[in-house]
Amino acid sequence: MSSYSQINNLPPRISVGDYIFHRLRQLKVMTIFGLPGEFSMPLMDKLYRVPDMRWAGNTNELNAAYAVDGYSRLKRLGCIITTFGVGELSAMNGIAGSFAEHVGLLHIVGMPPTSATTKQLLLHHTLGNGDYETFFRMANDVTCYNTIIIDSDFCADEVDMCIRMAWVKQKPTYMGVPSNQIDLQVDSTRLDIDLDLRLDPLISNNNNNNNIAYNEIESIRTLSNDSLEQAESQRMEGEITKIILKRIYESNNPAIVVDACVARQGLLRETQLFCELTMFPTFVTPMAKGIINEDMNNFGGVFTGSISSPDVREIVDFADLVIVIGCVLEEFSTSSFHFNIKPKNRIVIFDDSVKIKTVAYPDINIKNLLKNILFQLEQSKINYSFHKNLELQVPRQELTRDQLLRQELVWGEFSHWFRPGDIIITEVGTSAFGIIQTKFPKNTWGISQALWGSSGYSLGACLGASFAAQELKQEAAMYGNVNNDQLSHRVILFVGDGAFQITMQELSTIIKANLKPYIFIMNNQGYSIDRFLHHRSNAKYYDIQQWHYLSLLSVFGATDYETRKIITMGDLQDMLGDQKFAINDKIRMLEIMVPSMDVPQAIIDKWQREKEGSNVINENDHPHSIETSNSDVLSWSESPLTELEPDRKKRYL
Amino acid sequence: MSSYSQINNLPPRISVGDYIFHRLRQLKVMTIFGLPGEFSMPLMDKLYRVPDMRWAGNTNELNAAYAVDGYSRLKRLGCIITTFGVGELSAMNGIAGSFAEHVGLLHIVGMPPTSATTKQLLLHHTLGNGDYETFFRMANDVTCYNTIIIDSDFCADEVDMCIRMAWVKQKPTYMGVPSNQIDLQVDSTRLDIDLDLRLDPLISNNNNNNNIAYNEIESIRTLSNDSLEQAESQRMEGEITKIILKRIYESNNPAIVVDACVARQGLLRETQLFCELTMFPTFVTPMAKGIINEDMNNFGGVFTGSISSPDVREIVDFADLVIVIGCVLEEFSTSSFHFNIKPKNRIVIFDDSVKIKTVAYPDINIKNLLKNILFQLEQSKINYSFHKNLELQVPRQELTRDQLLRQELVWGEFSHWFRPGDIIITEVGTSAFGIIQTKFPKNTWGISQALWGSSGYSLGACLGASFAAQELKQEAAMYGNVNNDQLSHRVILFVGDGAFQITMQELSTIIKANLKPYIFIMNNQGYSIDRFLHHRSNAKYYDIQQWHYLSLLSVFGATDYETRKIITMGDLQDMLGDQKFAINDKIRMLEIMVPSMDVPQAIIDKWQREKEGSNVINENDHPHSIETSNSDVLSWSESPLTELEPDRKKRYL
Repeated sequence: MSSYSQINNLPPRISVGDYIFHRLRQLKVMTIFGLPGEFSMPLMDKLYRVPDMRWAGNTNELNAAYAVDGYSRLKRLGCIITTFGVGELSAMNGIAGSFAEHVGLLHIVGMPPTSATTKQLLLHHTLGNGDYETFFRMANDVTCYNTIIIDSDFCADEVDMCIRMAWVKQKPTYMGVPSNQIDLQVDSTRLDIDLDLRLDPLISNNNNNNNIAYNEIESIRTLSNDSLEQAESQRMEGEITKIILKRIYESNNPAIVVDACVARQGLLRETQLFCELTMFPTFVTPMAKGIINEDMNNFGGVFTGSISSPDVREIVDFADLVIVIGCVLEEFSTSSFHFNIKPKNRIVIFDDSVKIKTVAYPDINIKNLLKNILFQLEQSKINYSFHKNLELQVPRQELTRDQLLRQELVWGEFSHWFRPGDIIITEVGTSAFGIIQTKFPKNTWGISQALWGSSGYSLGACLGASFAAQELKQEAAMYGNVNNDQLSHRVILFVGDGAFQITMQELSTIIKANLKPYIFIMNNQGYSIDRFLHHRSNAKYYDIQQWHYLSLLSVFGATDYETRKIITMGDLQDMLGDQKFAINDKIRMLEIMVPSMDVPQAIIDKWQREKEGSNVINENDHPHSIETSNSDVLSWSESPLTELEPDRKKRYL
Repeated sequence: MSSYSQINNLPPRISVGDYIFHRLRQLKVMTIFGLPGEFSMPLMDKLYRVPDMRWAGNTNELNAAYAVDGYSRLKRLGCIITTFGVGELSAMNGIAGSFAEHVGLLHIVGMPPTSATTKQLLLHHTLGNGDYETFFRMANDVTCYNTIIIDSDFCADEVDMCIRMAWVKQKPTYMGVPSNQIDLQVDSTRLDIDLDLRLDPLISNNNNNNNIAYNEIESIRTLSNDSLEQAESQRMEGEITKIILKRIYESNNPAIVVDACVARQGLLRETQLFCELTMFPTFVTPMAKGIINEDMNNFGGVFTGSISSPDVREIVDFADLVIVIGCVLEEFSTSSFHFNIKPKNRIVIFDDSVKIKTVAYPDINIKNLLKNILFQLEQSKINYSFHKNLELQVPRQELTRDQLLRQELVWGEFSHWFRPGDIIITEVGTSAFGIIQTKFPKNTWGISQALWGSSGYSLGACLGASFAAQELKQEAAMYGNVNNDQLSHRVILFVGDGAFQITMQELSTIIKANLKPYIFIMNNQGYSIDRFLHHRSNAKYYDIQQWHYLSLLSVFGATDYETRKIITMGDLQDMLGDQKFAINDKIRMLEIMVPSMDVPQAIIDKWQREKEGSNVINENDHPHSIETSNSDVLSWSESPLTELEPDRKKRYL
C-alpha cells in the first residue's frame, strides 16, 4: 500500500504552508473559512495546490468564525484563516464561543514578516506601539494552545500540535504564520504517519455516526477486547467503572442527562448504547438535542434545569442518581434557566475527567471508560425497572386554515416535517426554546449555541454546516456507508429577524457556494426574547428596522431559489405538506410571521414557574425586572395577540 | 445663572446610570451606539430618561464600534454600549482601530450582577471557567483606562475619569457596569461642575471648527495673553518654543506635514494659522486630509512618504526642516507606502510630547505650545520666502460621453463637485488612494482609517458621521455660529464593493434614522487593491459574489431615496451636474462601475516607483511577490481594460 506522500506525488521536501493543508485534508477538513488579507495571501495560495481543498470566502471574519464552528460541530475539526490584527480581532467573539462550547478548530493568522517584527517597524494593523504579540496574547484566553511559526526545525511539529490539540481537546488553537515563513521546508514523509489523535481506531471512521442498531451491541462488546486490555491497565478507569456500576445497580430512581461533549468527543455510539442497555430515563441538555435517538421509549426530552417541564423535573429532581454524560458545565445559568444537580446524587462525566459526588478524577480517557462500563454492565443486576413510556408525542393541531400564526402553533408542525439525517440549527433567541418542544427523528443533528449565546451565530453556522453536510454525503458515498439518512442531510435553520440582521451577509456566501439550506426566519419584529425576559414590555431598543427579507436571495445573486411568506396555519400546512418543498434541491427562505410580543410556551412556562417561587432568581440582581402578578402572563401571551389580530394579516401583506 | 442640576430639575441624588448620560450630554455626546443585551438593558433604560439623548440601535457590535469612531472624529468623544462577552468581543476590532488611530470614546459594557461574579456562578456569555475578568483584561491592550463600577463611594469619580481620559488622551476607555450597580446613588450637584478637560476655555466651544479668517489672527494673539501667562510658567514649553522658532527662522527649505492628531486634539485653528503665518510648504498625511485649507497657495497635497508624487517628494525629501504637527506615528509602513522623515531635519509634535532631532520632550501641553509659537513668531525673521504656488489644480477632463469609467477618470470629477462643509469618508481600499488625487474645498472633513486599515470601517463610520453632522448643524444653529458651510455638512462615502459587503447591514441603521448620506460604491468586483498590490493577478479569493447593490435601499425599507448606476463618463457628468442631486435631501446610493483590474493612478505610480529602486521593500519579506518588468504596469493598467472594453457596458446593464 502506497504512502500518503507517494499517492499524492509529493516531492521529498514541501513548504510548511503545503504541509498544513495536507494535514487538514488527512482529517477530512476540506473547506477552509476566512477572508484574504495582506499577510495571509501567500498562505492561501498554498491552499489551492492541495487537491480537494476549497476556500469558503466569507463576507466577514465574525461570520467566518461562526461558520467554522458550525462546520466543526459536524466534522470534529475546522480551520479559519484571518489576517493579523483587523482580521483576527473581528473573529474573536466567534472563537471565544467555540472555546466556551468545546468546539475544535484551528485559527491560522497571517502575520507580518519576521523582519518587520524584529525591527519593530510600525506596520499598519498594529496598535502603533511596536508590539506584535498583543493579539497573540489576547488569543491566549480563548485557545487551548497557541504558537507562532518561526523555526524551521520545529514548524512541522508545531503544526501537528495545533491540529492535534484542537482535535483532542475540542477547543480552538491559534497558529500565527509570518508571511515570510510560509516556505520553510519540511519532510513530506511526515505525512505518511497519521497524527496520533488518541481515538480508538475501531470506530474513528464513524465517529460522526450515531446510527446504532441493536445487533451492534454484541459486536462492540466483543471487538472491544483488544482496546480494553489497554484500557483496563488504567487502574483509575477500572476503579471508577466499579463505582459507577455499583451506583447503577443500586439506584431505584435513576436518570441520564446527555450533554454536548458527547458529540464533540465522538462518544455518540457509546452513549446511545448505554442509554439503551440501562433503559434509564434519558434527557438531553438544549445543546445536546439530536445526540440521542428520540424514538427510544426511555427518552424523556430536554432537561433545562429550573424551567424543565413538570414531567422532566418529576424524574430528574427526585432521582437518587443522575448520570451526566459529556458534561460541558456542571452548573450553568442564563437569564432563562438554571442548570444544576444536587452533588450527592450525581455522577458527572466531563470530556476528560469524572466527578462522583464531590470527588474529582482528572485525566480519564472517557471513551475507554464508557466502553469499560458497557463491557462490564450486567443488565440483570440493575435494580430499576423501566415502567413508563416517556416517548414524546406531538399531536397534530386541529385549527382553521386562516388562523394567524403564533410561536406556540408553529413548532409542533415542524416535528412532523423533520426527517432522519436532518441538520437542525436554531438561533439562541426564541427559536432555541421553540425547538425544545419538537421531536427529532433518528440520526438528526441539532446545532445551537446555548451556552455562549451569541446572537447571529446561527446563520454563519448554517453556512459551515451546509459545507460539512455536502462533505459528509460525499464521504458516506466514498466509504460505502450509504443509507438514505446520510445521503440527504437537509440543513434547516431557524433564526429570528433580529439575529438574522447581525450576520445576514453570510447568506451571500451560501448562495455563492450553491448550498441549499432551508432558512426559516421567525419574524417577530425585533428582539422578542429580550422583550419578554427583561421587561415584559416593549422598550424602543427591542425594535429593529423591518426589511423585505425574502428579496435578499435575489439581491445577493441567487437564481434558483424559493421563497414563501407564511402568515396563516393554512400557509404553514401547505408548505410542509408539499412533497417538492421537502426536497432540498435549492436554497429556500421562508418568512414566518409571528407577533412581536409572542414567545414559545417554554419561555412563558419558565417565567410562570419562576414566579411560583421555585428557583426564583434573587430579584436584587435584576433591579429592573418589573413586578407582575400572575395575570400578566395572560396579558403578555394573549391580550396583545387578540388586540392585534384583526389587522395583523393586512400588515404582513 | 442656574446650575445644571437646577436647569434639569434633578433630585439631590441620582443613579450612576443617569449620571453617565448627563455627563456625556454635557460634552454634547447625544447619540449612543451599540446593541441591547441582557446585562446592558437596565443601563439603557436610563438613557431614555436624559433629555435629548438618542439610541442609534446598530445592527451588530463591530458596525457600532466603527460608527462611534466616525462620530467621535467629528465630535471628539463618542459612547458605545455592548453586553458582556459576546457583545464586547464583537466590538474589539473596532475599538482597537480607535486606539491605533487616536479616537476618543467610552466603551460601556453591561456586566452580570456582582452577586453572580462573586459566587463564580457559571453564567452564559462566559468561557465556563468562572473568570469574569477575562474580557476586561483583554480590553486592557486597546484602552487607555478601564474600570468596573462596584463602589458607591467612587463610582461617580470613575465615570468622570473614564470620560475625561477618553477626551484628553483621545483613546478608548472601558467601563464595566454590573447590572445591579446601575442604581448606585450619586450627588446630582456633581454635574454643576464641568469636567476638567485641560482645554483652553477660550475656544472649547469651537474646537471642531477649522474655519479661520485672517482677521481672527490678531484676536487670538491678543486674547491668548491670559492663558499664555499660565502656559509660559511651563518652563519646558517656553524652552521648546525658542528652539522651534530658531529652527523656523533659519530654515531655507522648510516643510510642514500635518497629521491626524491635530483634529483629534482640537488644534485645527492653531495649525491652520501656523501654516498661514509661516507660508511654509504644507502637506497632510492621508489620515489628515481635510484638516488644512487646500485653497492655500502653500498647500502642496498629500504626503504619502515613499509613494508621494514627485512634486511632494521634491520638497519634503530635500527639506532642511520638516515640522510634523499632530503626529500619530513617526514611522509607518503599509504594503502600499512607507512614511518616515530623516531624524536630523525633523521636529515632530505628537499629541502630548515633542521630539526635536532625536531628543524627546514628554508631557507637553501641545495647545499651549502652538499658541506660544504663534504668539512669539516674528514673520520678518523667517529666512525662507515662499516662491512657488503649490495649489492643486484639477483640470476638467475632455472625454466623450460614452467613455467607460476607470478609477483614473472618476476622482478628478469629484473635486469639482465637493463643496465646503462636506464630510468625505473613504474606505481603506482603492478609494483611499483615489481621494488623494482630489482637491477638498475649505472646511471639508476627511475620514479614513489609514493606519489600522480595517476593511468595512467606512460604512459604519458613515453612520456615525451622519449622526454627528446632524448634531453639529443643530449646535451651530443653537450657538449662532451659522454659516452655510456648517449648515450643509453633506456626508459622502466612497467604498469598494468588497469592503461594503463586510458591514453592509449598517445601511439599514442609516435608513432607520432617516439620515441622508451619499454612498458611492466603487464596484470593481472584489478586492482590487489586493489584486494589484499582492499578486498583480486575479487569484480566486479576490472575487466576491456580485450583488444588486442598488436594490438594498428598498429591501431595507427606505422609501425616499435615489439610486443611479454610473457606467460612462456621461452618466458621471450628468449626475454631478444635476443641481438637485447636489442637495442632500434624501439617502442616495450610486454604483460606479470600474474594471476589476483597475486601481487609482497613485497605486500604480507607487508600485512603479518601488520598482525603480527607491524605497524598495525587501523582497525577501514578500516571497510571493511576482517579479515583473516595467511593461507589466502597462499590461496591468491598460491591457485588461482594452480587452474588456467591448462588452463591459453590456455586462453592467
